[in-house]
Amino acid sequence: MNVQNRPHVVIVGAGFGGLYAVRSLKDADVRITVIDRRNYHLFQPLLYQVATASLSPADIAYPIRGVLNSQKNTGVFLAEAIAVDVNTRKVILEDGETNYDYLILATGVCHSYFGHPEWEIYAPGLKDVDDALEIRRRILLAFEKAERETDEARRQALLTFVIVGGGPTGVELAGAIGEIACKVMVGDFRTINPQDARIILVEAGPRILPSFPEDLSAKAEASLRRLSVDVRKNSPVTAIKADAVVIRNEQIPAATVLWAAGVTASPLARSLRVPLDRAGRVLVEPDLSIPGYPEVFVIGDLAAITDHAGHQLPGLAPVAIQQGRHAVHNILRRCQGLPSEAFRYVDRGILTTIGRAAAVAEFGTVKLSGFLAWIAWIFIHIFFLIGFRNRFVVLFEWAWAYATWHRSARLITGGDKGIYPISPSKYRQ
Amino acid sequence: MNVQNRPHVVIVGAGFGGLYAVRSLKDADVRITVIDRRNYHLFQPLLYQVATASLSPADIAYPIRGVLNSQKNTGVFLAEAIAVDVNTRKVILEDGETNYDYLILATGVCHSYFGHPEWEIYAPGLKDVDDALEIRRRILLAFEKAERETDEARRQALLTFVIVGGGPTGVELAGAIGEIACKVMVGDFRTINPQDARIILVEAGPRILPSFPEDLSAKAEASLRRLSVDVRKNSPVTAIKADAVVIRNEQIPAATVLWAAGVTASPLARSLRVPLDRAGRVLVEPDLSIPGYPEVFVIGDLAAITDHAGHQLPGLAPVAIQQGRHAVHNILRRCQGLPSEAFRYVDRGILTTIGRAAAVAEFGTVKLSGFLAWIAWIFIHIFFLIGFRNRFVVLFEWAWAYATWHRSARLITGGDKGIYPISPSKYRQ
Repeated sequence: MNVQNRPHVVIVGAGFGGLYAVRSLKDADVRITVIDRRNYHLFQPLLYQVATASLSPADIAYPIRGVLNSQKNTGVFLAEAIAVDVNTRKVILEDGETNYDYLILATGVCHSYFGHPEWEIYAPGLKDVDDALEIRRRILLAFEKAERETDEARRQALLTFVIVGGGPTGVELAGAIGEIACKVMVGDFRTINPQDARIILVEAGPRILPSFPEDLSAKAEASLRRLSVDVRKNSPVTAIKADAVVIRNEQIPAATVLWAAGVTASPLARSLRVPLDRAGRVLVEPDLSIPGYPEVFVIGDLAAITDHAGHQLPGLAPVAIQQGRHAVHNILRRCQGLPSEAFRYVDRGILTTIGRAAAVAEFGTVKLSGFLAWIAWIFIHIFFLIGFRNRFVVLFEWAWAYATWHRSARLITGGDKGIYPISPSKYRQ
Repeated sequence: MNVQNRPHVVIVGAGFGGLYAVRSLKDADVRITVIDRRNYHLFQPLLYQVATASLSPADIAYPIRGVLNSQKNTGVFLAEAIAVDVNTRKVILEDGETNYDYLILATGVCHSYFGHPEWEIYAPGLKDVDDALEIRRRILLAFEKAERETDEARRQALLTFVIVGGGPTGVELAGAIGEIACKVMVGDFRTINPQDARIILVEAGPRILPSFPEDLSAKAEASLRRLSVDVRKNSPVTAIKADAVVIRNEQIPAATVLWAAGVTASPLARSLRVPLDRAGRVLVEPDLSIPGYPEVFVIGDLAAITDHAGHQLPGLAPVAIQQGRHAVHNILRRCQGLPSEAFRYVDRGILTTIGRAAAVAEFGTVKLSGFLAWIAWIFIHIFFLIGFRNRFVVLFEWAWAYATWHRSARLITGGDKGIYPISPSKYRQ
């Protein structure tokens, strides 16, 4: 078959879903175009370690071209997709367009501030490398400014860190900041004591890690308290300002506020003109295609789908990976004139970490916490990292940090002079 | 002696000169304040490897507080010094001031565009981590844009890289870009062939590496030509525009232009109101102090001083390190009421590298080139890197790159979407 006559599969987004989809098409008799607005695949589960100065971006990111170099049926476009025209079968890019025969949409989610977009400049979220570097800059700069601050109230505000949202990202961020304050920075300052820092994890619901069993939530909370993290449950945030957070009616002066509370689907979903759920995710058919367009598949965080028990599938890497492979399976069936098949998620468990040597995990009926869960967490994460080099360096960094308490990436970068002010006007102009 | 009565030594700038000065004061009976606008010491000789995607910033940068953590007589200010008042003995900060009894100024140099500051936005120089990340972004983005460009002339311009200045930084950048194009990226693209990239090293003088012996200059040039670098000597740049460089009257369309041609002293020097040389450097006394103010020392790239043969000392790390130690030696003598002593530079040689397994070096009467010089280069650089972790990771990265041709830090970061346009308005607003 002539190359140009082969079906053209377009995959938008090279996260876990998109990347595992394209790799599953390695030997297929199709032409593939991967479109991403970044030139790298990001291992998002470890992004909080970049934000908290443990890892460098290059340790958890891998150039998409590097992954797909040897996959000769595949081309890569560094481009931003802004819409899909399902009727003419086109993906509209910011600077062009491309036709498809089959489409896999895997563009994920971005932060949602629950109707308060003005909070974003004060409380950055954590979705990509630039977010992580901005958060790292704010955390480190707050300690530096506190060291030179002479006003006691202002110094206390500089040493107050509020993390909004008690899901896995919020718990991991709070734990890592707790470690920095209580362990990593001890002895580094002359005026302040980093251990005086207040780290507050704010959760609107009745417990942190709501997707985990209740006893593991309680264990995670105990681990956080050992790192001096103040866990506030049933505490909805009602306002975020330049230098403070308001929880119900209590105003907490805080120079650093981080957002880990809500996400909303990539706006690309709306251009499909099919039903979406409240978070803007696409309500896909059981086979992961969209209603009326069997050649368009939506996977990963962008797809809303329930398991056999009627529970919404969570926005986790294993879900995206399995869906990416399943969408490819269905495309290959369609190429052969066969009907597509329904997706079934195989749940192998969930786990999250709380600082050094502590984690909680649930694998089927097995629940783990503490050191054993932490070891499981390490090996599962190393296994899914792409590239020997990244695996080796990340393991080395963890071993080094475990032995020395050092953080290798304590750099304040970005901004004109490295000390540009924490001001809304400078962030995301 | 009461701590507050001890002489207060202020050191501005934590580069090689400043950092070795403060470490030499470890056991001295003084109070020390280190002021830097960055929170890290940067190993500048390897910065070009960050700009060319071989290393991550954290591999060659080390937090100043981390280095000085155990030196209890020393405090660190993250602050920008904007002037010195030598009469009242004050360093004026952007947001405050500090008194000194002894001052060591080691703020180095910044880029000079020879009276054409408007060239900076088109041709960034390489002085700090943010510069390096911007250069990395431009180089990688040029290949990405070329892959999608349909106009042949525009594509050729995207694949043209001009490096202005044939000193060590220019030679190292040109060699590293040559390797990326000819080796690292082979097979990564479907439309372009990265080997078609034109890399042009432009030098106004009659030979590259003018500070090296002539035969080593010729060997460096031959090494660059093997990496397909077009070396243009006697070629003064007369204009730099958004998409082109003009060499004499020849206009070369090029999307990526890098500046490695000229430096000028940090503007802090002017506030001293003592004689400066043409590049704005302070003409220091033989003991490294400034005329009329024996308590003020200027060291490193910021100081203009000649050796016994009347040659200007070069802006190299060994000069700065020896001067930092010597300034401390003189401060300690003054504290004891002894006269200060003249500085003498002990020249242990110079060396520079040109891509993989090639370098040139001169140690006294010994000249090296090729593989042996490269091995010398590796071990000298590893030796001067601060911190076991950085030494280990950099050696690993080099061994990995040598074995696989991979570059671990091929990430396009910064900018709104990772693909923000190469446009002057977005850089350094």
